[in-house]
Amino acid sequence: MTQNTRDQFLETTCNLLETQGYYATGLNQIVQESGAPKGSLYYYFPDGKEELAAEAVKRTGMVLADRIQTNLAAYEQPADAVRAFLMRIADLAEESDFQSGGPLSTIAMETATSSELINLSCRDAFTGMRAAFKQKLIDVGVEAEQADELAIFCLAAIEGGILLSRTYHSGKPLRQVADQMHAVIHAATG
Amino acid sequence: MTQNTRDQFLETTCNLLETQGYYATGLNQIVQESGAPKGSLYYYFPDGKEELAAEAVKRTGMVLADRIQTNLAAYEQPADAVRAFLMRIADLAEESDFQSGGPLSTIAMETATSSELINLSCRDAFTGMRAAFKQKLIDVGVEAEQADELAIFCLAAIEGGILLSRTYHSGKPLRQVADQMHAVIHAATG
Repeated sequence: MTQNTRDQFLETTCNLLETQGYYATGLNQIVQESGAPKGSLYYYFPDGKEELAAEAVKRTGMVLADRIQTNLAAYEQPADAVRAFLMRIADLAEESDFQSGGPLSTIAMETATSSELINLSCRDAFTGMRAAFKQKLIDVGVEAEQADELAIFCLAAIEGGILLSRTYHSGKPLRQVADQMHAVIHAATG
Repeated sequence: MTQNTRDQFLETTCNLLETQGYYATGLNQIVQESGAPKGSLYYYFPDGKEELAAEAVKRTGMVLADRIQTNLAAYEQPADAVRAFLMRIADLAEESDFQSGGPLSTIAMETATSSELINLSCRDAFTGMRAAFKQKLIDVGVEAEQADELAIFCLAAIEGGILLSRTYHSGKPLRQVADQMHAVIHAATG
């Protein structure tokens, strides 16, 4: 068993959580799709599915914070950067036939009051994502408190846009949210 | 068996879907909490859980569209009305220890690509909610297309705010979204 086996379990779990959420994902499916022996799952995650999902959420949170940072860095103005990032999520959701987009939304709602372990991982993940938006705003001179409020608003609008786009099987809600958020951030950053 | 039995199943299902989502909710729990005999569940919903959930989503959608209309009618200006409505959701989420709020968000994400029946009910529900926001904007003279875009933005921000408030176990994200949406709608409606 190598570190790669652990990574393989986590990656498979991240993908399944994004597509189908926590409660629809069974350990057997994770084992089957990861291609690793079931015994090794309990070796790396002795507490089973809850522990594995909490670690997967942490991993996804780090990937997302990093992806947000990278995407925002591609544009000088936060308004343009956020709009482009949202347009990109709309494209990705469409390309996946709305199986993907918002890798944390489903599990965050499902476990908000049913698993403290996963809930804490979700909070950390959203906090990391907020921090990436906030920093981009601070970089162009927005004052910290306002940057924090805008970052929350931005994250809420994105998560809600993903929910609507996946429900309607259309990138349009996310693109409309993208344009609206552009206007909001543009007004706040001059 | 009376019509009340059917209603009782639907009401119990609506509550369970809001608190724990679709996949964590089993038929046995629905039967147990509704207090009706299991046989009558299959009498009213011969196709079982999927059919019951789709009907529950329809019912919730009608309740929500109506609740939005009523809440928005309490204020003349859409900006004030939307802010007050969001503050109210924040209060309700807190009072329920974050078990409630966003009765459709979890099931909409969970079933977006896994149940066509439920997905179509979720779309109709969101469309009804959007229409309520849109009408309020049109009533104060906002042009139809802009009203539609603002309504989508509003719904996305609310759904995302609910996700963040339930995840953080705090009404604060919803209240921050409330203030931000107030500014957005105020700017659009003069």
